[in-house]
Parts: sequence; structure tokens; C-alpha cells
Amino acid sequence: MSLPVSPLAPAGGFPAIPPVAGVRLATAAAGVKYQGRDDVMLALMPAGTAVAGVFTRSATRSAPVLDCQEKLGQDSAAGAAFLVNAGNANAFTGGAGRASVDALTAGVEAATGVPAGRVFTASTGVIGERLPHGRIADHLTGLAAAAQEGGFEPAARAIMTTDTYAKGAVRTVDISGTPVTIAGFAKGSGMIAPDMATMLVYLFTDAAYDQAALQALLSAENERSFNCITVDSDTSTSDTLLMAATGAAGVDATGDAGFAAALSDLMRDLAHQVVRDGEGATKFVEVTVTGAADAADAKRAALAIGNSPLVKTALAGEDPNWGRIVMAVGKSGAAADRDRLAIWFGETLVAEQGWVADSYTEDAGAAYMRQAELAIRVDLGIGDGEATIWTCDLTHAYITINADYRS
Amino acid sequence: MSLPVSPLAPAGGFPAIPPVAGVRLATAAAGVKYQGRDDVMLALMPAGTAVAGVFTRSATRSAPVLDCQEKLGQDSAAGAAFLVNAGNANAFTGGAGRASVDALTAGVEAATGVPAGRVFTASTGVIGERLPHGRIADHLTGLAAAAQEGGFEPAARAIMTTDTYAKGAVRTVDISGTPVTIAGFAKGSGMIAPDMATMLVYLFTDAAYDQAALQALLSAENERSFNCITVDSDTSTSDTLLMAATGAAGVDATGDAGFAAALSDLMRDLAHQVVRDGEGATKFVEVTVTGAADAADAKRAALAIGNSPLVKTALAGEDPNWGRIVMAVGKSGAAADRDRLAIWFGETLVAEQGWVADSYTEDAGAAYMRQAELAIRVDLGIGDGEATIWTCDLTHAYITINADYRS
Repeated sequence: MSLPVSPLAPAGGFPAIPPVAGVRLATAAAGVKYQGRDDVMLALMPAGTAVAGVFTRSATRSAPVLDCQEKLGQDSAAGAAFLVNAGNANAFTGGAGRASVDALTAGVEAATGVPAGRVFTASTGVIGERLPHGRIADHLTGLAAAAQEGGFEPAARAIMTTDTYAKGAVRTVDISGTPVTIAGFAKGSGMIAPDMATMLVYLFTDAAYDQAALQALLSAENERSFNCITVDSDTSTSDTLLMAATGAAGVDATGDAGFAAALSDLMRDLAHQVVRDGEGATKFVEVTVTGAADAADAKRAALAIGNSPLVKTALAGEDPNWGRIVMAVGKSGAAADRDRLAIWFGETLVAEQGWVADSYTEDAGAAYMRQAELAIRVDLGIGDGEATIWTCDLTHAYITINADYRS
Repeated sequence: MSLPVSPLAPAGGFPAIPPVAGVRLATAAAGVKYQGRDDVMLALMPAGTAVAGVFTRSATRSAPVLDCQEKLGQDSAAGAAFLVNAGNANAFTGGAGRASVDALTAGVEAATGVPAGRVFTASTGVIGERLPHGRIADHLTGLAAAAQEGGFEPAARAIMTTDTYAKGAVRTVDISGTPVTIAGFAKGSGMIAPDMATMLVYLFTDAAYDQAALQALLSAENERSFNCITVDSDTSTSDTLLMAATGAAGVDATGDAGFAAALSDLMRDLAHQVVRDGEGATKFVEVTVTGAADAADAKRAALAIGNSPLVKTALAGEDPNWGRIVMAVGKSGAAADRDRLAIWFGETLVAEQGWVADSYTEDAGAAYMRQAELAIRVDLGIGDGEATIWTCDLTHAYITINADYRS
């Protein structure tokens, strides 16, 4: 299946990402499922690299996720490796799933010297089919030999499934006079729902960072970025976010506010890129809820709006059907008072005090909806809770993509 | 918009429903929104009628729902009336919503003598537009004059919105040698999600029934019928289930087991008819979860499957993509152990012990999926909790219907 590039793809294409000191990348075409394209990515990091991660909270998470979770937070004196394949998720594959992970992590150790306990794998694609890991293992020696600094775009491309474009981002920060780089890439466009980590995301920096502090930072920033996006309310069994701090730049960024801000910005950038590639998406939609009883209620209401099939189909039809937003708030479980509710499309006040605003016209609403980038704001008028999430519309193309993705 | 009748519509069409003693029905074309069809229904019941109801739990529920909730459980020595319009939901219409309800209930009192406090209204259709209640009020005297026993099919037809067929059901029960009838009709095909009552459903019996007992019975049966269906996970602001027991048959059915069983059967029948008319549906799907930690967990997992866009699009594509069922169980929040999970399509074992079954073939799964009526069963292998819900697939037609329903 070949899909046209999302109309919401970033205008500039994949960003120019310079090499990140200490991070060597390689890709290969192992033919796990796809033919005629790279489908395996290996990232190699030197001794001293700190690794942090966040994973899906699905009760049916994949063998690679379980393996990564066991390994996190351990010995960082060794090097580290990330190995990812596309086309097969190695999820719900019983004992064979674990065996595949063990075979691949042992294979990486043999090919690179990075101990298996520091090899973090991920698999993305079809659930429930045995991973033909031998096809990947056959390429490990070649991947190890080919790995070199740079090459982010081919790495991002090798892990794509139904993605229509490769997703990357880079930021630079000055730490005590030393420039450091944060770079990353992500894949994901369907089975995207927040609150259980994210899709596959790999972040790298040449700064050093204390492992426990990096984990805390990554988890916190994940809450504000990848955990605030939804395409279709479905949550992957394979969601993995991993970050490696090699320290090769010779400076420690632990606790640096500028570094944290740059990381935050980069993660939100990548999260938005995932939504912009939402399966079949034609609208990129920011949903902000203010005035909620608390932040959790605000997020609950925002996600109810962002996940509602009726809101999302109205967006697809460029129909300013704000009644469906009221419906979604009502079903969300968030505390709400119909007569205090206010709704805006961009800067246009649509409804207030439980009814359509005197100043609002259907023409204004319809004109706003024709834009590709939309901002919906709802004020519940109850308290100070706020949240923003990002979502996309639900179109015919989503049905087409998902009604026969596997066949 | 004229939609073809759902391919899942009951084969026999609308059932032959005899008059229910004491229940007089009438319909009219008030032109609230639709032209060239009846869009208002009035039901009149005599003094002594017991009325019970269940309503949406939406925080943004409509003015008619709020009004009905205030009136339930009060004086049953007076008669009772149900007045319903299609085309406008009178929801999120601020103070004007309440005023419309007051005008209509007072109008019914003037036209029929049934006190306004016993007039239960409902409105279904677009949210957020002022109800032109004068158009309905103009017809009340005529409706009162025309009301007569029988006429269930036109009544069911008058309250339809995006429904593609009228939904009715009837059962008869013998109470101490006296035959009594339970009859009802329903509307609903989108914005259907359980756990907050249901769409519009009107049930009638000529048996007498103690009001408090009828309320308890209706609420309990609602949990097993309308609260177990989902089309699109969206919950209406107007959901209303009302039942009237006129007593005109001269027998009291309070506590009768046969009556309760017949009511249960009838309610499930109507609930299934709503799913069978799910917007764009081509598959009627029963999802049963067994072996859950408890019944609530079983329902949680079953609804996660029934609401998952990826499961529903796979069903639309006749793709036996059981990996998506694993995904949905995983995200549901229900306690689950990947390695104890088993899945069946009908009688065909698909997966067990956390992996595809040795006996399963894709051909068998694909052949099963080509049927219009599907049964999916998942055993979690943990406890004794069980639940069954009913849902439909998610198709292009759902997008078409909802991307421009209002315009």
C-alpha cells in the first residue's frame, strides 16, 4: 500500500540534522514484511551513555517492550544499542516473542560488543504474527560495520509503517559555553492514543545526563507532549520512547533549564508531526480546555472532544458543528455546567452561557473550518484547570487505510 | 439526506403490533426541520398510568431530559403524555430550551387535560439550535383529537432522524389468566454509547405496575440491554427511555417473573435494532468477554473492543485482524494476562495462551468475517466475570453520514 504524503506534513520536509557525537546509525533492508525498502534500524552509543524510556501501559504489551522495561535504569558504564524493525510488532506472539528478543539482543552483542542487557529493541507493525528474527539477525554484522554518526533521515524512514513521511527534529543548546545537540525521530500515524506513552520515538543527545534525572525529565516531558496526542483513541502494544545521552560533547546537562526547554520543544514538535501524519488526516486540531475543576478534568474533556468520532467527522466535513463539542464535554465525565460553557473556534466566540453567542454566524464558523489548522477552545467556567491536546479529523482515508491494512 | 435501509435491518420489517389498551398515539408533520414527513409523536395514557424512565447521564443533557427527570416518580393518579419531536434536540439552547419545554407541556395540558407535570417531552436532532416549538404547539389540538389506540409504526417513524428503518417490538404475557401486551419503539443510529441510558425508547403495557417497582425493573433491564450497545462511543445529550403501564388490561403485573422476562427480551430486541441501524453498519457484532476479574472488567474489555476504531474498521474490511482485539483488551484497563488470553470467532478458536492457535487458519478467519452477523469471544482466563455487548462496524458510510449530517 502506498499512501500519498499527508497534506499536513511539515512544509520543509525532514529537517537537516547534524551528527550527534557518539550516536552511530545504520539501516538495512531485512524484508521482515516490506520489500524494496529499509526496515531495520540500529543505533549504537558508547560506554557511559545514559538511557531513559517511557513505554505503553497496555496490558498486552509486546515482548520488546517488556524486555526494555526490565533493562532500564541499569548499568550505564556499558555502551547501549537501539534495534528497531518495521512490519511486524512481535506482540502477542507468546513465548516465541521473548525468544526473538533474546536472539536479537544476543546477536547485537555478538556483532557490536554492546552487552545484551544494554540492547533495547522495538518492533512495529502487525500484531500476532511470529517475528522472522533470523532475517534481521542476518544483517546485524553488516549494520554494526556500517554504523556511523549522522544518517537520521534514513533511520527515521526505516522504522515507518503507515507513516506517509519521516518525522525528525533537532535542537541545539549551549551548556556552559559548549554547544550540545538534541535530535530525534519518531514513527506513528494510527493506533495513537495518549496516556500510555507514545509510538516509537528515539531521542539522542551528546550531552551527559544523570540516568535517574534523565528518566524523570523524559517522563515529565512525555506527559506534556506524546501523552497529549490522539489520532484514533487506540493504544499500541509497542509504544516506546527511548532517549540516549552519550556525553560525547564533554558537558553534563543534568538539571540545565535550557536543555530541558529545548527537549520539551523538540518532543512537542515530534508529537505534532505524529498527529499531522494521523491516518487519513486533513486537519491538525489543537483542543484547549480551560476553566475546568482541575487539570485532570480539563484533559478528560479535551480528550473526549479529540476522540469523539462525531466531532472528528464534522471536522472532516468542515462543518462547524459545535453541538457535538457540547456532546463530547457532556459525556467526558468532567464536571461541567451547561450554562457556563463557552466555545471558541480560533478567536471566534461560538457559544457562551450555555448557548450560541449573539455575535456568532454560521458563515464565520464555516469559513474557519475550511482551514487546515484549527484551534478549538472550551471554557468550562468552573475552576482553573487547563489542558491542551492535539488531534486530527476522521476521514474516508482512515477507513480505507484500516479496513485493509493487513491484507 | 436519504439513506438506503441498513442491510442489517430485521428481515420481517416492522412487527405487527396490536393496540395496547389505554395507549393512544398520534403523529403530525410540524416541519421542525424535515419536510414531507411526520416529525412529532404524541402518546396519551389514562389516569392511573405508572411511568418509569432512564436518561442520559451526560453533563450537558437537554432541557427535555432535565424536565423529565424532575417529573418522574410523581403522582400517577393523573394521566400521562409523551411528546416527541425529531429534527431538533433542544439541547444546549440555554434558557430558551426550558421555555420551549414549558410551552409544549402547557400546550399538551390545554389540548388533552393531562397536567403539564405528567407530560414527558423529548427532542432529537441537531444540538444547539433553538427549538421552533410554536410549529409543534400548532399541532397539539389536532394530535389530541387524532390520538387513538394502535398506530405504533407511524409513531416509530415520526421520531426517526438518521435511522434507516422504524424500530418496534411487541411481546405478550399471560398474567393470572389475563393476556397483557408490552410494546415499544425506539430511534437511534448514531451518537450511541452505553452507560448513560440510551436513545429515545418508548415502552407501553396495558398491565398495571407499581411505579417504584417499574422504575427498578426498567433500570435493571436497561443495564442489560441499551447500556450494552455502542455504535460510535458518543453519548447523546437527549437519551430517554420511558415506559408507561396503563393498567387498562385490568391486571397488575408487579413482580411477575414472566412479565419481567418478556420485557427483558423486548428491550434487548429493540437495543439490537438500534445497533443494526448503526450509521453505515454492515456487520452486527456480539462481543462477549468471559474469565474477567469481575463483571465490570468484562464489560470494560468488551466495550474497548466494541468501540475501537481499528477493530471496527477491520470488521468493515472483513479482515480477521485479531491482533487489534488483543490491542483493545490491552488498552481497556481491565486486568489481563497476555499469556492467558483466548479468542474465538464464532466457534473457531483463534488464539490461546497468548498466541495464535495451532488449529487456526487465516482462511477460516477470513471466511467467518464475510458473514453479516459476527460473534467475537475473548476469555481473559483470570476470573468469573462475564459481559456481552453489541456493536457494529465502522465504514465509509459512517463518515459520509456524519461529515455532513447538519448541512
